[in-house]
Amino acid sequence: MPKILRATAEANPNIAIIKYWGKRDEKLILPMQGSNSVTLDEQLKTRTTVMFSDKFRQDEIWINNKQLTTPEELEKVMPQLNIIREMAKIRLKAKVVSYSVTPVAGGLAGSAAGLAAVAYAATNALGMNLSISELSVLCRLGSGSACRSVYGGFAEWKRGEKADGSDSFAVQIADEKHWPDFRIVVGVAESGEKKVKSRAGMKHTVANSILYSKRLEYLPKVLKESKDAILKKDASRLFEIAMRDSNDMHATMHDTWPPIMYLNDASKEVIYAIHELNQNGIKAGYSFDAGPNPTIFTLDKHVAEVKKILENAGIKKMFVSNVGSGPKILKDEIEHLIDENGNIRKHSFDEKKNMLVIEY
Amino acid sequence: MPKILRATAEANPNIAIIKYWGKRDEKLILPMQGSNSVTLDEQLKTRTTVMFSDKFRQDEIWINNKQLTTPEELEKVMPQLNIIREMAKIRLKAKVVSYSVTPVAGGLAGSAAGLAAVAYAATNALGMNLSISELSVLCRLGSGSACRSVYGGFAEWKRGEKADGSDSFAVQIADEKHWPDFRIVVGVAESGEKKVKSRAGMKHTVANSILYSKRLEYLPKVLKESKDAILKKDASRLFEIAMRDSNDMHATMHDTWPPIMYLNDASKEVIYAIHELNQNGIKAGYSFDAGPNPTIFTLDKHVAEVKKILENAGIKKMFVSNVGSGPKILKDEIEHLIDENGNIRKHSFDEKKNMLVIEY
Repeated sequence: MPKILRATAEANPNIAIIKYWGKRDEKLILPMQGSNSVTLDEQLKTRTTVMFSDKFRQDEIWINNKQLTTPEELEKVMPQLNIIREMAKIRLKAKVVSYSVTPVAGGLAGSAAGLAAVAYAATNALGMNLSISELSVLCRLGSGSACRSVYGGFAEWKRGEKADGSDSFAVQIADEKHWPDFRIVVGVAESGEKKVKSRAGMKHTVANSILYSKRLEYLPKVLKESKDAILKKDASRLFEIAMRDSNDMHATMHDTWPPIMYLNDASKEVIYAIHELNQNGIKAGYSFDAGPNPTIFTLDKHVAEVKKILENAGIKKMFVSNVGSGPKILKDEIEHLIDENGNIRKHSFDEKKNMLVIEY
Repeated sequence: MPKILRATAEANPNIAIIKYWGKRDEKLILPMQGSNSVTLDEQLKTRTTVMFSDKFRQDEIWINNKQLTTPEELEKVMPQLNIIREMAKIRLKAKVVSYSVTPVAGGLAGSAAGLAAVAYAATNALGMNLSISELSVLCRLGSGSACRSVYGGFAEWKRGEKADGSDSFAVQIADEKHWPDFRIVVGVAESGEKKVKSRAGMKHTVANSILYSKRLEYLPKVLKESKDAILKKDASRLFEIAMRDSNDMHATMHDTWPPIMYLNDASKEVIYAIHELNQNGIKAGYSFDAGPNPTIFTLDKHVAEVKKILENAGIKKMFVSNVGSGPKILKDEIEHLIDENGNIRKHSFDEKKNMLVIEY
């Protein structure tokens, strides 16, 4: 009996503190500048099973029980998969089954966790023995910021200098145990598809925002400052840097032609309320990715106040996350989303039990 | 019988095309860069009567039938009035009665018309013979952009170089007859007071927006380009420049610490809809001052489409304006808002008759 080339991985999304917005190489997904992030805990994880088999006639990719069919959808996963096959020197077709409780395209960094999980599962299925930097590069080729999800704790994605991108990967700033009372409150204001996808949006910003070059100038300095604040656990310093950087990024988006405007009235309300909360000392910092959903960095003791602010802004659904860990490989047969014969196991998220249920 | 020192002036608001945002001198109201604008027609005019008399025990200022009482309110008019008294070498107290159909502080440039009318009425009441450049300087000292309201048609406010501000005034680009089918559709989304006043807002932007310096770099070029587009009546070029500049200014506002966010969801809806309207050639250009109210520059033939866009965004009240004229002095006794004895005449705007009614 041939060896079953199958593995399952879980990865957690990361939320950027210093944001990634703009590529210097579209194909290799090389950023214009460095960025950093904190990895969320398991509440927003993605699980992915990848299987390679000569029984498969074609690649098949399923995300949240929906098969990807359009070229645009497939484009999100196929390049990474093809690179892995090339590296492993195989031609086998693959089945990829991925499940995430995170809204996929609402600026919640769901795809970062998804692509990181694919990279881990696929390379593990093929028995490839990659360093974490090589895995980070693979994740980067999948979805840019996914490269930061290879670490738990806090990670920095190095801009790198080489044209082939081999030095553009994430390094860990501090692990998940470094800052026990750090919290990330993730508000889910909208889970719909975005009007402007991040990829197209950042391309336009690089091409025609007048202000963007100024952002690039100042980023190296704040990247260093924010790393320092993380290492020193200087919460108010870090929260302020995060807010300023979020504002700065959304400013360059608005300066893009045509303008990109991800924030809505609820986002603005959260921003004003957090500034009010911070009037006598910074207790929390808002951060917005490419969408209206607010993410609030704070400390355990301020979580109740932050939750109230989001509720008052009409945001009903939210997650309070600790600093989370890096990807892991699940070995137990019961954990795979594809059985040993290549059939997809029925799976769904049970909100009451708060767990992924797999029909076995 | 002593001479009655009283005069009445009317002035129209102007809407900036290249925006003014940021002072290099707070006291003299000297801008960081040049700006330009189009003057609206009479629909949004302000009428002001100023009277000086030794019978008055103190200065008294009335705007829209409400007396200004707080230091913050008085600060808007008093400096200009004091400068005029100094120039005329008189110490008489003044009564100022101003009436405008424009919301005063909703980013609708109402104060520009108001301060221009005060400057014209006050200097006329005192029989001062000022050049239009000197009047423009006086208006500037009142409210910055008011200096552009001394001209009908299109005007440019020169940055100037001198420390005393004597070379920072408006010049006319083209008069009100230059572009007969040019239209300005002014939407009134909100007429409430602003969260962040323009004066404080622009001060913060100059002080701490990272991106603002880049804006200053690019402005001289677009100022020249937009003047050229006005002179050539190149509508689509001018509309694009206006939209880009509005976006650029609001971007630097968002990049300010704390961030300044004047646009709301309705503003965004208008922006997206105008870009859609422009897909096969630019028919209109949006522009936002320090508030959520959209102003749309367009041509007569596209007004119906533009009005529909504003209506769809929930904006019910709007004005369609031609290019308007500069301030004028009203000589007829019946036009004064203050009678010859210094008593205020009851006055109000009759929306049905669409005219200012004065009880005589």
